[in-house]
Amino acid sequence: MWIDPVTSNPGLYSVIFENERVRVLEYLDQPGQESIPHDHPDSVMVTLSSFSRRLASGDKAVDVEMPASTARWLGAQNHSGHNTGSTPTHCIFVELKEPPLAPRTGEPVLGPTAS
Amino acid sequence: MWIDPVTSNPGLYSVIFENERVRVLEYLDQPGQESIPHDHPDSVMVTLSSFSRRLASGDKAVDVEMPASTARWLGAQNHSGHNTGSTPTHCIFVELKEPPLAPRTGEPVLGPTAS
Repeated sequence: MWIDPVTSNPGLYSVIFENERVRVLEYLDQPGQESIPHDHPDSVMVTLSSFSRRLASGDKAVDVEMPASTARWLGAQNHSGHNTGSTPTHCIFVELKEPPLAPRTGEPVLGPTAS
Repeated sequence: MWIDPVTSNPGLYSVIFENERVRVLEYLDQPGQESIPHDHPDSVMVTLSSFSRRLASGDKAVDVEMPASTARWLGAQNHSGHNTGSTPTHCIFVELKEPPLAPRTGEPVLGPTAS
């Protein structure tokens, strides 16, 4: 079952824009906060703050450090997040609503990637 | 002819990420700077600064004021931009590389829109 983070974590995720091609989410938390597991479609994450987070999915976990004012790909995935830093995490997700022309094969990659 | 802003305005636009679905551009200018006419595909603009700009296309022009840390849709269009404010414009464009499933009809809308 697809778990929409806006529904599962309404205090953290909010919809700031939507049309037929994209949905844009704003994410804002405080140090120590955790999200419950939820799903992301193929998305671009744009950072409005720097942050340190641990993302977990099943028995996998990755630590992610990102500077402010940059962008990374977040391939479709289910995960939960934990703000492991000392500052808020503030970022924007541009979710792609249309299916990919060329679907990726293989296991989803946990966390943001540079390609 | 399609005019890529990275080629036409290399001092203002740079590619910070690209894969098969999206290309992500960073835009940074100074007050008074102008871009020469260029094309955008359907894109989401995420603002890293507030800004005041005048966008022009042919005999049309619109003044755009945006706060920092928000997002707007920028439908496919050709325009030039002029930083008419007193601060740099810093923003990110998430360009959609795939054609829309349901192409829009009618005239392109100049500038960012809320839908």
